[in-house]
Amino acid sequence: MYVAIMGYGVVGSGVAELFDKNHESIVKKSTQSQLELKYILDLRDFPGDANEKLIIKDFNLILNDPDVGIVVETMGGLHPAYDYVLACLKAGKSVVTSNKELVASKGYELLKTATEKNVNFLFEASVGGGIPIIRPISQCLAANEINEIVGILNGTTNFILTMMIENSMSFQDALKLAQDNGYAEKDPTADIEGLDACRKICILASLCFGKHVYPESVFTQGISKINLEDVEYAESWGGVIKLIGRAVKLSDDKISAMVSPCIVQKHSQLAGVDDVFNAILVRGDAIGDVVFYGRGAGKMPTASAVVADVIDCAKHVETKKLFGWDDSEAGYVSDYLDDKTALYIRAKVENRALAIDAAQKVFGEIKLLNREKESAQELAFVTPVATERELLTRLETLHAIEPLSVIRISDY
Amino acid sequence: MYVAIMGYGVVGSGVAELFDKNHESIVKKSTQSQLELKYILDLRDFPGDANEKLIIKDFNLILNDPDVGIVVETMGGLHPAYDYVLACLKAGKSVVTSNKELVASKGYELLKTATEKNVNFLFEASVGGGIPIIRPISQCLAANEINEIVGILNGTTNFILTMMIENSMSFQDALKLAQDNGYAEKDPTADIEGLDACRKICILASLCFGKHVYPESVFTQGISKINLEDVEYAESWGGVIKLIGRAVKLSDDKISAMVSPCIVQKHSQLAGVDDVFNAILVRGDAIGDVVFYGRGAGKMPTASAVVADVIDCAKHVETKKLFGWDDSEAGYVSDYLDDKTALYIRAKVENRALAIDAAQKVFGEIKLLNREKESAQELAFVTPVATERELLTRLETLHAIEPLSVIRISDY
Repeated sequence: MYVAIMGYGVVGSGVAELFDKNHESIVKKSTQSQLELKYILDLRDFPGDANEKLIIKDFNLILNDPDVGIVVETMGGLHPAYDYVLACLKAGKSVVTSNKELVASKGYELLKTATEKNVNFLFEASVGGGIPIIRPISQCLAANEINEIVGILNGTTNFILTMMIENSMSFQDALKLAQDNGYAEKDPTADIEGLDACRKICILASLCFGKHVYPESVFTQGISKINLEDVEYAESWGGVIKLIGRAVKLSDDKISAMVSPCIVQKHSQLAGVDDVFNAILVRGDAIGDVVFYGRGAGKMPTASAVVADVIDCAKHVETKKLFGWDDSEAGYVSDYLDDKTALYIRAKVENRALAIDAAQKVFGEIKLLNREKESAQELAFVTPVATERELLTRLETLHAIEPLSVIRISDY
Repeated sequence: MYVAIMGYGVVGSGVAELFDKNHESIVKKSTQSQLELKYILDLRDFPGDANEKLIIKDFNLILNDPDVGIVVETMGGLHPAYDYVLACLKAGKSVVTSNKELVASKGYELLKTATEKNVNFLFEASVGGGIPIIRPISQCLAANEINEIVGILNGTTNFILTMMIENSMSFQDALKLAQDNGYAEKDPTADIEGLDACRKICILASLCFGKHVYPESVFTQGISKINLEDVEYAESWGGVIKLIGRAVKLSDDKISAMVSPCIVQKHSQLAGVDDVFNAILVRGDAIGDVVFYGRGAGKMPTASAVVADVIDCAKHVETKKLFGWDDSEAGYVSDYLDDKTALYIRAKVENRALAIDAAQKVFGEIKLLNREKESAQELAFVTPVATERELLTRLETLHAIEPLSVIRISDY
């Protein structure tokens, strides 16, 4: 059996490298007599590359070659990745992808096509890099009804927050360091504004709850407005600020899902997840909480997940892995303002004593926070738990303070 | 298709309960038109039990019923579990077990029989209770060469150590509390002396490195000699004492494997694993470190792993899951004394200053530890790294101290 790779960037070249490095054991595990790389599709040239001879520029060579049974898509982006993947599936080829945007936007349709064509469409690498998560959820936790899934899903933002928390770096300096280290792109928007994490929570929620969750339906907030004052106040509360993706089953027809910075209690299993590491917590009715931890990105970890999927496709050539979800209706994801939460609020005040008094009148029992070098014009506190809508409505009536930062308090 | 359960104890009854509770989704995921429980084998009577009508006392009813395609073994112990499981596999039935003693002692033989008969022998529940670990290792990490696996594999001892560390309870009081809470058996030997953890690291090492690791070949030390002085010194060093099972690949023909208390650095992902929770760290060449965390025991978590395996057996009725390992030769597991480590040593001394001087002469640079209420006749320090054999040999020459406690320092 032959394999083609589409996209010879960081992940694609890692796939080729790993495929070569552990080739003997990969073929053995695939149960195929042979499993070879035949084509690498990329518009660029790679003079002197070990796989130079495999590089092609015409997608149709892959599409029309009946020897190619498995196609790896590591191009990223929605087009032409979507068009190529759809064509491959329709041509009866199994497809493995690391492309979270593709799965988050088109997962339902591509899985449906794969089922119709009795081929596999696998995407372990699209969430959590090399961390095994898609297969454990779909297989190992199959006896559970999963109620909730929550995680640190983006390594770049977690690195930035870790630098802010541990080294008191400003957001801008930490972002710069992430870029210098190759953890963040030149245009870091997709990471720091939470889009990447949003795609991942969409994929996880689709898998756990059985209906496609579209990224547009998920409220998404990034970390670019978090500053060191917030980090210090969170510390004084006994927590750390993390960018959290979360999805909760409300009923068969409704879930809540969102991405936002949260203050996480220090004793939580998610609080100790630092640097570029990711962790995903799955809550099932039988298993309780299970956490999966590891490198959420990077060339070889991601390649490792892709190659594991390739092995699985090779093993299941004639038996489609049952795996998929239904489409969802409008309104499947509830309005995040209806979620219950406590809020951390940092504000500018004229008169601290009067402001505290006013805040207590509006919110009831609030927990005041302190930090070193706090100014007299500064107030930070945590509200009681209520729907976010109610808390924000009340906040609007609180004229004695000028809110500078509002962060959800996680109950993990 | 029909399922039989052998052993209606804690786990077996959990399997029946979960099978009933999530039955519709379990059948759907199994891809069978039906999947029903037909027999429960147990010598006891269960008057009034919901499944009373399914209880049988004669194993042959299961063995000779061609409708029973999947047999769940939750009896525990080696006999008659082994005999029944072997007979079922030979009769062409797939078997799912939660019995770590069975897999650790007879895994190679039972997997070989399953392969010969083209049926499945699955045991996700035998390690880490409900934590997905067997399948992630065999499938998700299939593209990796795994070099090392290390974990907190026993919830009972982890609960006891947590109580000692967090509440300064004595070992005896913590053990009593574990028994009162149902976390420890009346005879707690298998847990506290490390036998249970040993069986689990044997199963994991067999799976990761491809050859059967027999429990007799693995040096195993429990926690019954750990006391609060050790806990305090570990704290002063910046660590916590955990019972660690560990296996490392040395070459294709040699591994190291052991179970023993270790002092784990506080920033390790294993240090924050408290109470009855388990965590397993897998180190692969592509993925780096991955950690799996969750409840390592308990009725429903374990049942959840068993039922997931049952679903997998039902899905793979005609396609044997490739899954197994070879037998191993004598000497496959190296002598633990050849492992390199640093040691924590707590000792009784006559004259502290002289003892420190002597210890430095024998070991070179040692790190002295302190605790509150330390007596003048007490000395605790950490040696440099060397083979344990060398360190112990040197310790014997050190007549100025009387060692009371020796604990390995983990490099995690």
